[in-house]
Amino acid sequence: MLHKNRLYTPGPTQLLPSAQFAMAAATMHHRTADFRDLYVRTLADLKSFIGTRNDVILMACSGSGAMEASISNLTSPGDRVLVLTAGKFGERWSSLAKAYGVKAEVVSAPYGETFTLEAVRAKLDGVRVVYMQGTETSTGVRHDVQGVAKLLKGTDTLLVVDAITGLGTTHFDVDGWGVDVLIGGSQKAVMIPPGLAYLSVSERAWQRMDSTSNPRFYFDLRKERKSAAKGESAYTPATSLIAGLGAALDFIRGMGNGDLAAGRYDLVENAETAAAMTRAAAEALGLQLFAKSSPAAAVTAIHAPEGVDSGAIVKAFRTQFGAVIANGQGDEMKGKIFRVAHLGYYDYLDTIAIIGALEHVLATVSKTTHSELGPGLRAAQTTYARRVTFAAAAAV
Amino acid sequence: MLHKNRLYTPGPTQLLPSAQFAMAAATMHHRTADFRDLYVRTLADLKSFIGTRNDVILMACSGSGAMEASISNLTSPGDRVLVLTAGKFGERWSSLAKAYGVKAEVVSAPYGETFTLEAVRAKLDGVRVVYMQGTETSTGVRHDVQGVAKLLKGTDTLLVVDAITGLGTTHFDVDGWGVDVLIGGSQKAVMIPPGLAYLSVSERAWQRMDSTSNPRFYFDLRKERKSAAKGESAYTPATSLIAGLGAALDFIRGMGNGDLAAGRYDLVENAETAAAMTRAAAEALGLQLFAKSSPAAAVTAIHAPEGVDSGAIVKAFRTQFGAVIANGQGDEMKGKIFRVAHLGYYDYLDTIAIIGALEHVLATVSKTTHSELGPGLRAAQTTYARRVTFAAAAAV
Repeated sequence: MLHKNRLYTPGPTQLLPSAQFAMAAATMHHRTADFRDLYVRTLADLKSFIGTRNDVILMACSGSGAMEASISNLTSPGDRVLVLTAGKFGERWSSLAKAYGVKAEVVSAPYGETFTLEAVRAKLDGVRVVYMQGTETSTGVRHDVQGVAKLLKGTDTLLVVDAITGLGTTHFDVDGWGVDVLIGGSQKAVMIPPGLAYLSVSERAWQRMDSTSNPRFYFDLRKERKSAAKGESAYTPATSLIAGLGAALDFIRGMGNGDLAAGRYDLVENAETAAAMTRAAAEALGLQLFAKSSPAAAVTAIHAPEGVDSGAIVKAFRTQFGAVIANGQGDEMKGKIFRVAHLGYYDYLDTIAIIGALEHVLATVSKTTHSELGPGLRAAQTTYARRVTFAAAAAV
Repeated sequence: MLHKNRLYTPGPTQLLPSAQFAMAAATMHHRTADFRDLYVRTLADLKSFIGTRNDVILMACSGSGAMEASISNLTSPGDRVLVLTAGKFGERWSSLAKAYGVKAEVVSAPYGETFTLEAVRAKLDGVRVVYMQGTETSTGVRHDVQGVAKLLKGTDTLLVVDAITGLGTTHFDVDGWGVDVLIGGSQKAVMIPPGLAYLSVSERAWQRMDSTSNPRFYFDLRKERKSAAKGESAYTPATSLIAGLGAALDFIRGMGNGDLAAGRYDLVENAETAAAMTRAAAEALGLQLFAKSSPAAAVTAIHAPEGVDSGAIVKAFRTQFGAVIANGQGDEMKGKIFRVAHLGYYDYLDTIAIIGALEHVLATVSKTTHSELGPGLRAAQTTYARRVTFAAAAAV
């Protein structure tokens, strides 16, 4: 049969067609009223999408650039910070801290798990900033942002959350919980290609920047804030991607019948349903989930069957069906797990279809696995029907 | 009449349609063979486009990000560097040096002029890196990169050239002259939207990075070089823009009948012709060029007629014809000059058309100016005919 190229990877994700067309059509100069209109509207929409009254800063870079900004703007050399880590992206915080001469205390948990709040509390003394992920993309585990935020209430320790895959797949209450910086990226639940990152920044985080001394220029958040107040970006913005982002936020607003926050809620529930279907299918097929607890809705990480390299599963998806899923990340997880994404533009048909393909792939790569066709699909359908019935009942 | 939105700005520039379609169609994940093929090919094509054997690094950021990389990677706090400046982008080097604790000596020239090599020579003592522009976009003046490179021959002072608008509008011999870092951007002569920057980096620049200590993470060039050797980027690449860049480099190769270097040569000559036509038209219309000498082919900066705010000219182009040209940049030049770009995707029709529009615009904004229609167009046509005849004669 035909192979369509389909992304089931936790970024980049499946692209929204209206955003693709908006990107191709965007021929605007960035110092014009047309662009300022788009920029002001997109920043305001991002605030609604994130669900915050804080200023949002948008930059031309990958999510790692925004992570760097939240280190270089909020710290001085020698500062003590706390990094919460249980995967490859948690480890990136430590590398960033090191690059900027910042002393990083670390609370870590094994891959596939999350850290305890007790362990976090025990290390908070003298810490200027806590850095964590909302969702650890490399393991498919969701961390307890609300719990960590509670520990910091009433202190002057800032909380920075990499929600690059968490946004649109987890409900955050940024202002209510007190998340000082929340980071998002373009190639995730907002359904456009990579190249943009954004951050919401709290008043006390802005104040912190008055006294921090680590060098920043391209990622200077205060400079961007000043420009944003005039409807511009400090450096040349990635205009085509911003046009795509504007179209994607319009789409999410449409999901919420004209209300972006409602659309975000539905987007999270959509990912939750796709993730629940996928987990149910995996278990029905005798596969083991990698997340020991708190599985993320952004991406489901699944152990390869014993004796099977997960790279063979990734490859089979690609060659048999044109579908791109993710291998494990880093030496410890590569070859051991495979990951299927749910964040953004995936519907029931996308989800049931990749599960159907999974059953064929398992039959291909492993003789010991359940090779009967159908149980994964049935489990997914049952899960879908139950969730939809439940949501309908809840809405009455 | 209809208004088509047309960019005559020195970045972003008019978009190449085949690149727009390639961008919209790019749905690839960045850790796949498909992307690696594109990335390896695009990096190799960029080397041909720049005209160097040095490694080329491609990053998701604006040109300012690449300028920052060439400061943070090549210096340590306290280092002495020399900044050559005669415009807003020259001044950016000084700001960057300051942000990274680097002592910047400065050789400057008034806006609209270029510095003398004697002044440069006098300040070279103890300098670790010289930073300059190939073309100063804010003034439309070309600087003497070859002359500065000659002064540095046999020393261990590195030469960094911001050729963001210079590439594709000026002939550089990167390896022959000894340019250690040459910086380019996507929204310039390569005819795609903003969001990508690239740098060619010489062996001795790579060596310098072994001993420099300024912090860098997202802009860590050595990390990118290591990833590029595996056909990947260190952080998530801006895939859609890279697909567009690939298509644009194919187009430039086509201009050179299959030879990218020949295509680049033609692209420079194309800009030279458009610039010469525009300068001749301006002078025929009694306007004064802002560049006192060495006018750039990338962009022509023109004084507004006496008593006219150049903003009114920019506005009239926009409202009467849908054409976007640039005002002067910064307090000193805004309102005084207007700028018309020639870099990238402009042909004879684009050039003669904007000159035709200029004649109407001048009649609108100024009663003292030559309001006869035609002399600008005639001068441009004569210039075109002379250059084409000359090129044909040279080819015999």
